[in-house]
Amino acid sequence: MKKVAVIGLGVVGSATAKNLKKFSNIISKRTGIKIKLALICDIRPNFKNFAKKLGVPFTTDIKEVLNNPDIDIVVELIGGYEPAGTIIKTALRNGKDVVTANKALLAASGKELFALADSLGRIVGYEAAVCGAIPLIKNISQSLVGCEVDSVYGVLNGTTNYILDRMYKDRIDFSEALKQAQVNGYAEKDSSLDIDGKDTLHKLCILSYLCFNVWPKYAQVFTEGISKISLLDVLYADELGCKIKLLAIGKCSGNTVDLRVHPAFVPADKPIGQVDGAYNAVSFKTYPAGNLFFYGEGAGGTPTSASVISDIVSIASGQKNVSRKLESVKFKNINDTAARYYIRFTALDKPGVLSAVAKILSEHKISISSVSQKEQCQKKYVPIIMITHKANERALRAAIMKIDKLEFIKQPTQLIRIVNC
Amino acid sequence: MKKVAVIGLGVVGSATAKNLKKFSNIISKRTGIKIKLALICDIRPNFKNFAKKLGVPFTTDIKEVLNNPDIDIVVELIGGYEPAGTIIKTALRNGKDVVTANKALLAASGKELFALADSLGRIVGYEAAVCGAIPLIKNISQSLVGCEVDSVYGVLNGTTNYILDRMYKDRIDFSEALKQAQVNGYAEKDSSLDIDGKDTLHKLCILSYLCFNVWPKYAQVFTEGISKISLLDVLYADELGCKIKLLAIGKCSGNTVDLRVHPAFVPADKPIGQVDGAYNAVSFKTYPAGNLFFYGEGAGGTPTSASVISDIVSIASGQKNVSRKLESVKFKNINDTAARYYIRFTALDKPGVLSAVAKILSEHKISISSVSQKEQCQKKYVPIIMITHKANERALRAAIMKIDKLEFIKQPTQLIRIVNC
Repeated sequence: MKKVAVIGLGVVGSATAKNLKKFSNIISKRTGIKIKLALICDIRPNFKNFAKKLGVPFTTDIKEVLNNPDIDIVVELIGGYEPAGTIIKTALRNGKDVVTANKALLAASGKELFALADSLGRIVGYEAAVCGAIPLIKNISQSLVGCEVDSVYGVLNGTTNYILDRMYKDRIDFSEALKQAQVNGYAEKDSSLDIDGKDTLHKLCILSYLCFNVWPKYAQVFTEGISKISLLDVLYADELGCKIKLLAIGKCSGNTVDLRVHPAFVPADKPIGQVDGAYNAVSFKTYPAGNLFFYGEGAGGTPTSASVISDIVSIASGQKNVSRKLESVKFKNINDTAARYYIRFTALDKPGVLSAVAKILSEHKISISSVSQKEQCQKKYVPIIMITHKANERALRAAIMKIDKLEFIKQPTQLIRIVNC
Repeated sequence: MKKVAVIGLGVVGSATAKNLKKFSNIISKRTGIKIKLALICDIRPNFKNFAKKLGVPFTTDIKEVLNNPDIDIVVELIGGYEPAGTIIKTALRNGKDVVTANKALLAASGKELFALADSLGRIVGYEAAVCGAIPLIKNISQSLVGCEVDSVYGVLNGTTNYILDRMYKDRIDFSEALKQAQVNGYAEKDSSLDIDGKDTLHKLCILSYLCFNVWPKYAQVFTEGISKISLLDVLYADELGCKIKLLAIGKCSGNTVDLRVHPAFVPADKPIGQVDGAYNAVSFKTYPAGNLFFYGEGAGGTPTSASVISDIVSIASGQKNVSRKLESVKFKNINDTAARYYIRFTALDKPGVLSAVAKILSEHKISISSVSQKEQCQKKYVPIIMITHKANERALRAAIMKIDKLEFIKQPTQLIRIVNC
């Protein structure tokens, strides 16, 4: 019998408590493993009723959990850096295994937390920290343990995917789609962590540990959000048979790791182009397992509680710790990468514009694959769309910087990478 | 240090031996787990050179493996019922854990083999038995251990999916596509196990154990292959925005389990409609984990070896046995199911045909959603396509049996279920 305490009764915490109560009999029947939800903790006293209904003891005092010798597994579902970090460390030191969904904390301090757990012979389960219900962590750490991961491409954030999906389906601009996401419960009031790509960054850091055996610092991962994506871009993507997705990208070649988070044009007919609404998905290119693609609900209390519970069962069934030995790698600078680019200039509609822009691109050895400038009535400024052949990012940025200083360019030029994943 | 012996150097066996040698250092570096390929066995003496190149001892005598006290894990990759079954049982009784990719054997004897392993405190790893490199077994047995699986829909056989894909893409008939599959190495010379749906049935039996805690007998699973699918059907599916896939379907409602293998119309824009070529994919509807979809290479030595190796590492890292307690359920008869149907009649082109057919359907309470009969030049017989509303299978079959006795019906009517997965 393993006794479990849940700390933090937010969306994931309350769903975990409910489903742990509901399914512990089924788990025991299926596997013989006995799990008991023995204690619930939240600093908000009004959750006492919730615990009472479940028939589980309740406390507002975290120390009552951490110092309780009966508790085997502490489930930290508060989120954020502190007090979550201290809770996890104290629990481990007090001889308890830990399950957490805290991606921000792991991205920042996973290295130290896993080392501490290792040194104490304890487990930190974190399946719920990346992509909600998709069993990514176990897939990579167990099923791909004997594989080289060449690349990972992920749609890891449901909020931004919902927004981009709404822009595409309803033909609305970013700000309107954001409002819809907030109204429909897919975005927080302050959704900057999602919009700016930071939540995706946190998850990519964890994937980087599992795929490439390295914990990056945030500054080593180029991160760009979706707030500058306009409806125009979404529509042009559609014309090209693409969708715009906020991608987490990790690639490893020899000793160099390329990690980035940015919006990208992806083929609409490939699996990753078809990730709907608030869903998440990840594709891997590996050897020898080949190409793998996983798709599921990336957020929400109920789906995420399934991952928390699977960690609890794994620990209760005697899972051994198999922390990765870290490797020393170089991080690729985004300027040293190459891609095909979608470029949208906003220019005064007058003779000579196209030739001036094309001249600067040519001077920077940027080769154009296609140009589109549609006839516009009664508009002073027009969008010019170019798709490049494969180009170096540094050269392209230098060219754009020069172009944006031309007097007939109205606003900063839009640049979106085309990723064939 | 865990010492491993591989028995059977077919496609999967030789890839496993190679990749185990190649990746054992990486696995050890990542996880600290040491694995040694200590012995290779094949009854064909000419594989001695293969083993010599790898620097691994070789024997043609299976007893040398089974009676070797140094071997911790026996990897059975011979396939088929015997001697594989005896090898696995002997290995378990001799205190060894076993890894196998043998779906036919597990489908027929998984119940006994797992019970034997349980009684001896040993493990049988079988990740490679279903969908090659896709980590399905671990996903269901670990990640979904605390979930109710409501339904599972799978494209579990690469050969048939390749054939249906070629028919669609090249506009060729079944026999031509089968030839292409054989020429390109996607189908065996005798591919009846694939074509008739039996290979899919074997895999569905294993999924049924994991999802619904029940081992079905083959006769309890309605099984229909793809040999009667014509190019006409593929083209009509396309017109309706569908693809034809050979589906494994498992559904559980209360105490009743519905298991079937048959071709189906599936929406082309849903993930399962987009499973390309020889790939495999499975989608699950669960609670609380929600909808999950997994996609990857379902066959081939190299991808499948990744799953074999992941089982070896799991066993070496101290994986505990968590065999399912079986449940007693009812199996749903296909006649008691309901679906929308695609029906293709082949009829003499003369007045009264449509009304006669429609009358019989109406008498059986089959309601028609759409009819298509295209004008044909110089053909005596024409296809009439009907899509029904949801109808009972028993009633539909009775109607079709009656219709097929009408003198103007040229050949047995084609019937394909429409599955909205």
